[in-house]
Amino acid sequence: MAINTENVSVEISKTSKIDSVDFSNLNFGREFTDHMFVCDFVDGEWQTPKVMPYQAMSYEPSARVFHYGQAVFEGMKAYKDDNGKVFLFRPKQNFDRINKSAQRLAMPAFPENYFFEGLETLLKLDNEWIKPGMGNSLYLRPFIIATEPAISASPANTYRFMIICSPAKAYYNAPVRVLVAEEYSRSADGGVGFAKAAGNYAAQFYPTSLAQEKGFQQVIWTDASTHTYLEEAGTMNVFFRINDTLITAPTSDRILDGVTRKSIVQLAEDLGIKCEVRKIKVDEIKTAAKDGSLKEIFGAGTAAVISPISAFEHKNELFDIPVSEDSYAKLFKQTLLNIQHNVSEDKHGWRYEVK
Amino acid sequence: MAINTENVSVEISKTSKIDSVDFSNLNFGREFTDHMFVCDFVDGEWQTPKVMPYQAMSYEPSARVFHYGQAVFEGMKAYKDDNGKVFLFRPKQNFDRINKSAQRLAMPAFPENYFFEGLETLLKLDNEWIKPGMGNSLYLRPFIIATEPAISASPANTYRFMIICSPAKAYYNAPVRVLVAEEYSRSADGGVGFAKAAGNYAAQFYPTSLAQEKGFQQVIWTDASTHTYLEEAGTMNVFFRINDTLITAPTSDRILDGVTRKSIVQLAEDLGIKCEVRKIKVDEIKTAAKDGSLKEIFGAGTAAVISPISAFEHKNELFDIPVSEDSYAKLFKQTLLNIQHNVSEDKHGWRYEVK
Ligand SMILES: Cc1ncc(COP(=O)(O)O)c(C=O)c1O
Ligand SMILES: Cc1ncc(COP(=O)(O)O)c(C=O)c1O
Repeated sequence: MAINTENVSVEISKTSKIDSVDFSNLNFGREFTDHMFVCDFVDGEWQTPKVMPYQAMSYEPSARVFHYGQAVFEGMKAYKDDNGKVFLFRPKQNFDRINKSAQRLAMPAFPENYFFEGLETLLKLDNEWIKPGMGNSLYLRPFIIATEPAISASPANTYRFMIICSPAKAYYNAPVRVLVAEEYSRSADGGVGFAKAAGNYAAQFYPTSLAQEKGFQQVIWTDASTHTYLEEAGTMNVFFRINDTLITAPTSDRILDGVTRKSIVQLAEDLGIKCEVRKIKVDEIKTAAKDGSLKEIFGAGTAAVISPISAFEHKNELFDIPVSEDSYAKLFKQTLLNIQHNVSEDKHGWRYEVK
Repeated sequence: MAINTENVSVEISKTSKIDSVDFSNLNFGREFTDHMFVCDFVDGEWQTPKVMPYQAMSYEPSARVFHYGQAVFEGMKAYKDDNGKVFLFRPKQNFDRINKSAQRLAMPAFPENYFFEGLETLLKLDNEWIKPGMGNSLYLRPFIIATEPAISASPANTYRFMIICSPAKAYYNAPVRVLVAEEYSRSADGGVGFAKAAGNYAAQFYPTSLAQEKGFQQVIWTDASTHTYLEEAGTMNVFFRINDTLITAPTSDRILDGVTRKSIVQLAEDLGIKCEVRKIKVDEIKTAAKDGSLKEIFGAGTAAVISPISAFEHKNELFDIPVSEDSYAKLFKQTLLNIQHNVSEDKHGWRYEVK
C-alpha cells in the first residue's frame, strides 16, 4: 500500500472500529470507517488537506450551514473485486457535479487533485472496509459546508470540504411502491433541483412521510408548474418501459443529472435497447398501465443502483405493475454491477482503479 | 433581575465579551452575546433546556443538517426603552412560524413554554447587550438543526434547538436597487418557500451575486412558473405604492408570511391608507413607473425593518423611483419603531414585555 501524500497530510488512526461492525447487517449510512478527509477554505484558498481519524468536530452555533443550508454533497461508491483490486465508478462525474452544485450555491470550486488524492488516500487507509462480493461497496460521501461564524444571509467566506465513508449493501431491497406528486414539489424552474444541494432533500421529507403513511415508500416528483410531467424520485432518476422502449425524462434545472441514469442510457444503446430521453406525461404512463404496454418502472441511482417499482398511485388510482419476465431492471443492474465489480469488460472506461 | 429557572437550567458565563464590542460599529450577525439557549430532542422528547455560555459545539461529520439541510430558523428582535424596559415584538408569531416551518421540514414542534422561558432567561442574562435608542436592538436567532449522525435521506431522530443573540443596528442603511427575477426562482408551488427553511436562503446566494455584479443589492423574486408576478425579496416582503394605494402580494406556499408585512397591513388600516393584498404583475409596476403613478417600493422584514427601494430593473429596462415627499416607507418605519421601542401606544398588544 503506497500512500501518496504529495498534497495530503495524513494522521493514521491508532485504533480501528472495524471489528465492531456487522458487515452482514448494515444500515445505510450509520457506520463510518476509521478515517475521514478534511480540507478547509480560508482566506480565499483551500488549505492543506488532511486525512485523519474519523471524529466529531467543533462548530460555532453561527456557522452559516446551520442557518442558510449552504451545503452540497456527492454520493459515490468504491468496489472491490475478487482479487482485492479497488475501483471507483466514473468518479470524474461526481467531481464535476460537486463543483457544479457548489457554483449554484455560491461556494468555491474544489480542486481536482485534492479530490482524487483525498479519495485515494482514504480508500487505501480504509481498504479493509471495502468488502468484495456483488452488492457490497463502500459508500463515499464528499460534502462541502459553509462554516463562517456569521449569520448574514450571504455566501460564507469559509468552507469545509469533507469525505466520509460508510460500508454499504444495496440501498433498497424490495421493490418499492411510489406515489406520483400532485401537490407538493421538489424543485422549481430556475431553482436548485439539478444541484445536490442539501436543502433539496429535507424539503422532500414531509411529503414523503405523507406518502409513507399511505403505504408508499417514495414519491415520484412531477413538474412544479403543472404536475403533469414525471421527473425523478428523491434520490433516483426514473425509467419507464413501454413495450420494449425505455423512456426517461431529460435533465433540466429541476432534475439531477444522475451518473447511473446516463450510464443506463449508454448501456441501452450498447445492448440495442431503444431508449428515449423526453418529457413523459403522467397520463401517458397511466394509459400504458391500463392497456398493458407499461412493462416496468425503475429508479436508478448510486445508492440504490436499480430499484424496481412495483406500483404507483396517482389521483387515487393505483396501478400495479406485473413482474416482468425479461426485466430490464434486472438486466441493467447486473450489467452495471459487473462493470463496477470488474467482472465484465469496461468498454467506456468507466472503472477507475485505486492503485 | 429574576431568572425564572422553572424549566431551564442555567450556567452563567464567568466572563463577558461585552467590552470588546464596538456598539457604534456593528456588522450584522457577527458578534454574539455571552449566553445561548440549547435544547436537544432525543428519544422522541425535548430534553431539559439549558442557557449556557456562548460556545462552539461538537458535531459528527454525519450530522444530518450537513447533508440534507434539515434546518429551520427564526429572526426576531428585543428592544429597550429609555427606562430600561425590554420588549419583544409579536414573539408568538415567530414561535408559531418556527413550528410551521419545522412541520414542513418533518421536524418535531418545539414547546411554547421552553421557547418563551429560553428567550426571557437569555434576555435577562444578556440584558446589557440590549442598547436603548431608536434603531438599536438585539437580534434573536432561534433555529433547529437535525443532529442525528446518519446519512440516510430521511428525517432525523435527534435535533437541537438553539437561540443565539447578536446586537444589531438597522440592517440596510442606504436605499437598495433591485433586480426583478426573470430566470432564477426562489421557490416552487408545493415547495418550502413559505417556511424559514435553511435551504431557501443558500439557493438565493448565486442569483443574488449575479445581480450584485450588475449593481443591484437584492433580487425581487417572481413566480417560478411564469416569472410575471412579483413575490418577495430574499429576506423581506415587498410593498408597492401606486398613487396612494399600497399593494403587496398575498402569502402562499411560495412566500414567507412576514410579521413586519402583516403589521404594515394592519397599520395601513389604522392610518387610513388603502392597502391591497393581491397578485401584482411585473408589467403593472413597469407601467406605473412609466406613467409616474409608482410612488414607492419598499421591503419589510425584521432585520431591515423597512428598506426603501430606489430603482428596479426588469428585462434590461431600468426604472428609477423618485424620492417621495410624503414617504410611506418612512411613515411605517417610524410607526413600527415607535411601537417596538415603547414610545407610542400599542393598541394591538404587539409589545411583549420581558420582566
Ligand atoms: C435527486 C437525485 N436524483 C437522482 C440521483 C441519482 O444520481 P446518481 O446516479 O449520480 O447517484 C440522486 C443521487 O444519488 C439524487 O439525489
Ligand atoms: C424570505 C423572507 N421574506 C420575508 C421576511 C420578513 O419576515 P419578518 O417580517 O417576519 O421578519 C423574511 C424574514 O426575515 C424572510 O426570510
